[in-house]
Amino acid sequence: MTSSSTPREHPELRGRLRDALGADAVTTDPDVLAAHGRDEAAFGSAGTAAALVRARGTDDVRRVLAVAHELGAPVVPQGARTGLSGGANAVDGCVLLSLERMDAIVRVDPDEQTAVVQPGVVNSALSAAAAEHGLFYPPDPSSWEVSTIGGNVATNAGGLCCVKYGVTADFVRGLEVVLPGGEVLRTGRRTAKGVAGYDLTRLVCGSEGTLGVVTEVTVGLVPAPEAALTAVATFPSVADAAKAVAGVMSTRLRPSLLELMDGPTIAAVNDHRDMGLPAEAGAMLLVQSDRGERAASDIAEFAGVFADHGALDVIEAESAAESRTLLQARRMVHVALERLGTNLVDDVCVPRSRMAELVEGVAALGAEHGLVTTCSGHAGDGNMHPTVIFDRDDPEQVRHAELVFGAIMELGLSLGGTITGEHGVGLLKRRWLAEEVGPLGARLHAGIKRVFDPRGILNPGKVVE
Amino acid sequence: MTSSSTPREHPELRGRLRDALGADAVTTDPDVLAAHGRDEAAFGSAGTAAALVRARGTDDVRRVLAVAHELGAPVVPQGARTGLSGGANAVDGCVLLSLERMDAIVRVDPDEQTAVVQPGVVNSALSAAAAEHGLFYPPDPSSWEVSTIGGNVATNAGGLCCVKYGVTADFVRGLEVVLPGGEVLRTGRRTAKGVAGYDLTRLVCGSEGTLGVVTEVTVGLVPAPEAALTAVATFPSVADAAKAVAGVMSTRLRPSLLELMDGPTIAAVNDHRDMGLPAEAGAMLLVQSDRGERAASDIAEFAGVFADHGALDVIEAESAAESRTLLQARRMVHVALERLGTNLVDDVCVPRSRMAELVEGVAALGAEHGLVTTCSGHAGDGNMHPTVIFDRDDPEQVRHAELVFGAIMELGLSLGGTITGEHGVGLLKRRWLAEEVGPLGARLHAGIKRVFDPRGILNPGKVVE
Repeated sequence: MTSSSTPREHPELRGRLRDALGADAVTTDPDVLAAHGRDEAAFGSAGTAAALVRARGTDDVRRVLAVAHELGAPVVPQGARTGLSGGANAVDGCVLLSLERMDAIVRVDPDEQTAVVQPGVVNSALSAAAAEHGLFYPPDPSSWEVSTIGGNVATNAGGLCCVKYGVTADFVRGLEVVLPGGEVLRTGRRTAKGVAGYDLTRLVCGSEGTLGVVTEVTVGLVPAPEAALTAVATFPSVADAAKAVAGVMSTRLRPSLLELMDGPTIAAVNDHRDMGLPAEAGAMLLVQSDRGERAASDIAEFAGVFADHGALDVIEAESAAESRTLLQARRMVHVALERLGTNLVDDVCVPRSRMAELVEGVAALGAEHGLVTTCSGHAGDGNMHPTVIFDRDDPEQVRHAELVFGAIMELGLSLGGTITGEHGVGLLKRRWLAEEVGPLGARLHAGIKRVFDPRGILNPGKVVE
Repeated sequence: MTSSSTPREHPELRGRLRDALGADAVTTDPDVLAAHGRDEAAFGSAGTAAALVRARGTDDVRRVLAVAHELGAPVVPQGARTGLSGGANAVDGCVLLSLERMDAIVRVDPDEQTAVVQPGVVNSALSAAAAEHGLFYPPDPSSWEVSTIGGNVATNAGGLCCVKYGVTADFVRGLEVVLPGGEVLRTGRRTAKGVAGYDLTRLVCGSEGTLGVVTEVTVGLVPAPEAALTAVATFPSVADAAKAVAGVMSTRLRPSLLELMDGPTIAAVNDHRDMGLPAEAGAMLLVQSDRGERAASDIAEFAGVFADHGALDVIEAESAAESRTLLQARRMVHVALERLGTNLVDDVCVPRSRMAELVEGVAALGAEHGLVTTCSGHAGDGNMHPTVIFDRDDPEQVRHAELVFGAIMELGLSLGGTITGEHGVGLLKRRWLAEEVGPLGARLHAGIKRVFDPRGILNPGKVVE
């Protein structure tokens, strides 16, 4: 059976997986493997996988990790592959371990305000299940209609609501995690509080599949927010808008969304569909309050702050429908930018007081390298998504785009920021992670990795080099 | 100089510490050492320390950890020693490393809504410094007027506000941590968000001094809450009160405090000072809303829930002064119970739906062992502080108190809970931690401990056995 195999065909690994899981569960078709070889990162290497396993339950994951651990074969866990850092990219000879079929909402407990879900549950499905009980699962990455909770946990995903509600890990109470060798770890708690021992739940959240494979997630839910209203304002410059953001955040109110689009982003949206955004605006802010009967007075206060900081124009929605219209420009950013070329999306988070310097610095880097750059993102958190637009068929542009991508992270670090606010490190940001955490931090990362994964089979080459 | 020393006098360790820090910084007076040998846990062993160092800054901590690491001498970090689990108790031959003198509020940044403090800053001092800027540092352990931020971080302390705001770690953004050998680690971020690498900040929070010594803490602050109002209700039984708690938590409103006192607690408070609490009540609930102009309607809604669940009596405060009066009974619990004997305070957190079973089970255990027990605590989180009252001079009572203490944790675990909601594991709960996290969890704890502290000098024998 294996006599005609070449090393590239990984006969032992494939055979052992088929023995353990059944032949149907193991895909080795090269086209299928290639189609599953990458997430949505605009560049970064991807290797050639040996097999794809679509796990049907924790037992399948255990079997894969037992075989892989024994053979020393790499395992790359995958959700919907909507990540932007290459964290789900194949490595040579790996098992791609897809969790997408483990998509059961195990239960929603309205009394405890918790839900238990498998990792393949799509974020929006969990949100909908919570809403049926008048409850709310806040984390809302832009990919929320396609990305999975497992992927959200792996990257500790954020979103628009973070400014008020926090990131994914803030809602994760406990995990079931399969470790190399196939042992099953249960971390955390089912209760509202719990401080027993080291916080292994938080350690696994955001570890991007390098410490274990998450097979079940217990999340906390909160009461559903009340009706939301939105206001929008344009400003002559990002510096003005940044001051207005500081003004909003220094009120006693906490907005449920506070987004910024810079001039080039506004221009791209205008080019895509004329929404009547003022061409002369250097920046636009969108703000929301979800406090029901107090939303109108909240956004009136925010609008006042905008006016005090030199807004060119302020529009306050008076209804949910108007609010949706106002948010359309923000929702259109992704599509509008994709029309311009390949997008390399960065994810730098800086102290709010340094945000204008970040946005201005990104524009200067784009100009220096002859590339279009834009900045938009979660201004209330200082978390920008600088985006470099390039032509992936032009090697010079690719080279410059990579240089700008790195220079943006250096700039973020120099402003007291972090290289990633919500997307993770993956493949693309390892070098800068080492810079951010320093040699001692890197040594601790490597040590912790060895405790969980002594043979280094889990998503090797991601996060830690 | 060392020729007449016995081994108990640790001449090498003391000499090296004096050389590194100056003779003034190192205390070896046996009475002083004995006075610093324990925290507030009602029992648990305490060893004899070799020296006490009151660190004046990070450099002192580095020097202590360099010397101790080289000599393999244990180091027990201490704050205000208000812990309840023996986590700060001396071990034989250790250096007691007090952080109390490192009490500078380095800065409060109102724009970023952050503060940077040294570990010896008392919780109430940070709260006051934040309040000067209209900001709020929510974590409020009962000890908040004496306990330090370093100790709060070490135990991941909670408090009354957790039901709305969360525990200490939810507000910690970054840490400076000195590791054995004296290397200085900086974890986390200064920004609102950040997911770069493994969450070392959370790993150190709640690790009770077993992974490193925290020398600086960056916390996030939130806008100051608005005026608060309180309501109080009594119920025939804990079961009724527990249902009312579930009712309150299933409204769309989130109270800023939701506390329970059981019948024996009410009786103890009544005995201490007659506050007119109804002797026939089986339980009392206190609830608060801190939403200013909406507080009155919030507590009216809570009061309605109480009435619907069979409250004997409901009182809604109409002013801040009335609210304070209503909370007096809760504030008096500690003093009232201390009058009855030595208090062994447990800290079990269970799903809210199991809270009545916990309280009833604690009463049954007390009856079985012939000891008075009470339950009070943070009902909104399911976090109770069952308290065993005993006479520490009666060996039989001590023995039974220890048995009840353990049985309460077993009960909590059997109800799907955790052995500690906010006090930590320390010395007293190690055995049950092993049970809660299981053999694999324990192995990971030991592995992580070795990564940070390969010679095992940091607070040995605490948390992990």
